[in-house]
Amino acid sequence: MTNPRRSRDLLTRYLPILAWARSYDRDTATSDLVAAVIVTIMLIPQSLAYALLAGLPAEMGLYASILPLVAYAIFGTSRALAVGPVAVVSLMTAAAIGQLGLTSPAEIALAAVTLAFISGVFLTLLGVLKLGFLANFLSHPVIAGFITASGVLIAASQLKHIFGISAEGHTLLELVLSLAEHIGQTNPITLVIGVGATAFLFWVRKGLKPLLVRAGVGPRLADIFAKAGPVAAVVATTLIAWGFGLDARGVKLVGDIPMGLPPLSAPSFDLSMWSTLLLPAVLISIIGFVESVSVAQTLAAKRRQRIDPDQELIGLGTSNIASAISGGFPVTGGFSRSVVNFDAGAATPAAGAYTAVGIGIATLVLTPLLFFLPKATLAATIIVAVLSLVDFSILKKTWTYSMVDFIAVTATIVLTLLVGVEMGVSAGVLLSIFLHLYKTSKPHVAEVGLVPGTQHFRNVKRHDVETLPGVLTLRVDESLYFVNARFLEDYVLARVSECDNLSHVVLMFPAVNEVDMSALETLEELNRRLGEQKITLHLTEVKGPVMDRLKRSHFLHDLTGRVFLSQYDAWCALKTAAPEGADEKRVAAQ
Amino acid sequence: MTNPRRSRDLLTRYLPILAWARSYDRDTATSDLVAAVIVTIMLIPQSLAYALLAGLPAEMGLYASILPLVAYAIFGTSRALAVGPVAVVSLMTAAAIGQLGLTSPAEIALAAVTLAFISGVFLTLLGVLKLGFLANFLSHPVIAGFITASGVLIAASQLKHIFGISAEGHTLLELVLSLAEHIGQTNPITLVIGVGATAFLFWVRKGLKPLLVRAGVGPRLADIFAKAGPVAAVVATTLIAWGFGLDARGVKLVGDIPMGLPPLSAPSFDLSMWSTLLLPAVLISIIGFVESVSVAQTLAAKRRQRIDPDQELIGLGTSNIASAISGGFPVTGGFSRSVVNFDAGAATPAAGAYTAVGIGIATLVLTPLLFFLPKATLAATIIVAVLSLVDFSILKKTWTYSMVDFIAVTATIVLTLLVGVEMGVSAGVLLSIFLHLYKTSKPHVAEVGLVPGTQHFRNVKRHDVETLPGVLTLRVDESLYFVNARFLEDYVLARVSECDNLSHVVLMFPAVNEVDMSALETLEELNRRLGEQKITLHLTEVKGPVMDRLKRSHFLHDLTGRVFLSQYDAWCALKTAAPEGADEKRVAAQ
Repeated sequence: MTNPRRSRDLLTRYLPILAWARSYDRDTATSDLVAAVIVTIMLIPQSLAYALLAGLPAEMGLYASILPLVAYAIFGTSRALAVGPVAVVSLMTAAAIGQLGLTSPAEIALAAVTLAFISGVFLTLLGVLKLGFLANFLSHPVIAGFITASGVLIAASQLKHIFGISAEGHTLLELVLSLAEHIGQTNPITLVIGVGATAFLFWVRKGLKPLLVRAGVGPRLADIFAKAGPVAAVVATTLIAWGFGLDARGVKLVGDIPMGLPPLSAPSFDLSMWSTLLLPAVLISIIGFVESVSVAQTLAAKRRQRIDPDQELIGLGTSNIASAISGGFPVTGGFSRSVVNFDAGAATPAAGAYTAVGIGIATLVLTPLLFFLPKATLAATIIVAVLSLVDFSILKKTWTYSMVDFIAVTATIVLTLLVGVEMGVSAGVLLSIFLHLYKTSKPHVAEVGLVPGTQHFRNVKRHDVETLPGVLTLRVDESLYFVNARFLEDYVLARVSECDNLSHVVLMFPAVNEVDMSALETLEELNRRLGEQKITLHLTEVKGPVMDRLKRSHFLHDLTGRVFLSQYDAWCALKTAAPEGADEKRVAAQ
Repeated sequence: MTNPRRSRDLLTRYLPILAWARSYDRDTATSDLVAAVIVTIMLIPQSLAYALLAGLPAEMGLYASILPLVAYAIFGTSRALAVGPVAVVSLMTAAAIGQLGLTSPAEIALAAVTLAFISGVFLTLLGVLKLGFLANFLSHPVIAGFITASGVLIAASQLKHIFGISAEGHTLLELVLSLAEHIGQTNPITLVIGVGATAFLFWVRKGLKPLLVRAGVGPRLADIFAKAGPVAAVVATTLIAWGFGLDARGVKLVGDIPMGLPPLSAPSFDLSMWSTLLLPAVLISIIGFVESVSVAQTLAAKRRQRIDPDQELIGLGTSNIASAISGGFPVTGGFSRSVVNFDAGAATPAAGAYTAVGIGIATLVLTPLLFFLPKATLAATIIVAVLSLVDFSILKKTWTYSMVDFIAVTATIVLTLLVGVEMGVSAGVLLSIFLHLYKTSKPHVAEVGLVPGTQHFRNVKRHDVETLPGVLTLRVDESLYFVNARFLEDYVLARVSECDNLSHVVLMFPAVNEVDMSALETLEELNRRLGEQKITLHLTEVKGPVMDRLKRSHFLHDLTGRVFLSQYDAWCALKTAAPEGADEKRVAAQ
């Protein structure tokens, strides 16, 4: 029998649109429309710019900003996320396609579509299989380092447009050398436009809002005005280029953009292309997902809403598939546009759908007007946008707090800049996992004693505590598993060999959350070897789940000593059993 | 200024021979010599057999049993380890060389020498850099599963010699299909010799020792006699093959073995060969090291001696380099020969050097006598030796004890048998690491209460405990790091949203051995979000090393609540602060 309520719940889980569409009213629609108009204005120059950053024709940016937004409105759970082309993913797209060594524009476009398709399928699969937790394998410092390094790379890659020269490269060194080689061919008019637009946009970002606020404009409206700065730069420089006929003076323009809605497209199923694009697609998917989900969670928390990470994967996955079938390239939820969308009052994902309509209209009527738009202006908008991502303070923070995080973030930044985005992020992930395992491979083991007047036990080196003669009590500060199993055996036997007249070893397990098969064998061996020396082995404060598992083995049967619920119980029992005349001794903290 | 004592210590660390050579006397020499004679007798057929298993000419087995043993005697720390060709490493050598698709015997020999060289350099480097702990990334169950599956593969690969047919393959399926295809060409005389030798060797292993003991022979001597069984089989079948001229009847013989000491050889430095052999060499090194070091440690423990794993790496590394320059192939410390060496009384690594002299003499005088040795006899010695490695009980043990270990060991066995040794062991390592991280990604978090009459806190679901109203106390059973940082935040906020009138959240950290940068950011966020809901966050039982690090951040400054030394202190403080009239409630264990 089918349960109608259960089917409906399931349907709502996979189609979040059903949850909010039912209560959609005129007020919500007005909020969404206002937000959509503002985001559309912001998105037009950004989508063109990010397409150029990805090494693709400008119109693909527009195409990637229509159907993907509609797909996210249907399948996504965040009410404020603005999906579309974003800087870091566009940079990674350029690097991925660059590996194919293609020259024909049609082949390059096909590769971009294929990359979006693979990424979309991968994200959707992860979501359906509820594997969203995999994104947690990227540590915060690695992400921060990667985004910072990517920002630097992106800014460097745009300098050629500011100077009006050609320069190629996927690493900082390549870019700098290539720029140095061609700097003599600088086009002065392009440079004036590029530097002017960059300076203007920086001023808009930093200086315009305070000015407007002082002039009596509300701070939120002032903020939105400031975010529209790129549109002003686009309009102004386009008019200048048109009025002065700058194309004849060597200023590179966006040029012809095909008019009309996106064409239907299909990915390539060429095996060698897939095998080259698979790893980049996986990295693009994960980076895109992590960036998107963290923005979505931050914004949702402000309004006490929730997002579902696994459903977000499906939302972003279908967006990328939608991008692939409509001539686009990989997309994700972008930070700055989402914040603008949120501030402008977007109340449901419908705002994204309205934005899609806005961009659709732009492809129908605006494209001829963009012919005279200088590429230097787009480069300026990218540079100003990405420099806000660059934040090297993570180096200082991790240096103070954790050497392991510092190493991982440094490797990520250095390798991203010098070898490339894929190497940078892969090395960051692998290194942080390896260093975590390395740390657990030599766990902290503390000899503990009783804090006088309590039932509490602490490190003899840090606290004034009492210990019992003939008893060595060790607190193991790590789960026991294959990586550190042998370490524990060696450590305990070495400690035992330093003590005279030892009759009991007590292992305190409050911090042991796991004892795997390798560690179990080690404990059995330890029990046997201590037994040969007539030393009894006890365990205390073994956690429920660990105890459940030990009960399924022979270990508890073979154990020479006992398992005590608390360390204090062990203390009382061993104190009573202590030889006549032996007193507990006081150990001073060092 | 150089410190002579320090230099001498350093020299002794890198040249363990200096430690034992000084006190070397006639008694020790006699013990070593006796052991060397026995091991030499055992090693002659084994070295020939393992060379054939590796797909190499028989003499390379002898070559791999001379200089490597001398190198180990100088650099190794185990006093009983018998270095030389072993079954599993020989199988891996065959798989590695097979990937190169070579046909000329000279090229194949060069590849084997190169493999030994890469492996030797890698091991030595690991030792010098003190990276021996890397071997711990192989969990016990994965090793057990890999050795079992390798044993099956090795036995299957030798069946062709028993039947006197040709069959090729690196996986169980390929081997079985190839055997089935050629089974019609079985040579009956070969089959009789092969089956006869196998049955004889099984009987020697199982039945001879009890027989000798009953006849009054001492059990240790009886054991050594039983281990010499293969020599009897070699002598008998060689005589039969010679007497009856079996080569004319289609029985495959070992044939011409060049007489004389090993030739000097040099590895290839061809880049494409290195790139193919690098990964296999790394895997061979690690598997060889793990096998060797575990034998060495077991034997050392019996005599209360110690071995130094990092120096062992140097010992095995130089052995492999020695093998590479003297026409050999990868070697390591073998299980069965080391046990024989130990039982026969080997007291220092000099026993290995004497064995090398024995094998050297064999290459000078014995090789012509081996012309008539049937390959089926060698195959029988391999089959009987490796079947003792096959032990599927690890599947049952892990099934009962730990599902994660069971999955890792099953994957290792299945992939080794069906895809190959390299895939099997790599998948085992990666899977056990991934599953370990996966387990820690959703840590166990228990709500705890006071066990009445004690100062001890346990899970409310498992024990009869008391809790305070308005206080939620959670014990986090895992280190906090990037993989589970977000989980904790989500979990605590979800628990908080289920409780009414909550004023305090206490996080008990006795099991938190690490708080990395990602987790620190999560705790800061949690503190902030709880603060917005007027809920105070406290920490208790924070370990020394974790506390040290938290003090280097802003977290303790921003924390809304306090850090208590013990959970009981927190209980007392919060009980006093509890609102009037509210009584502690009793929570029954479920």
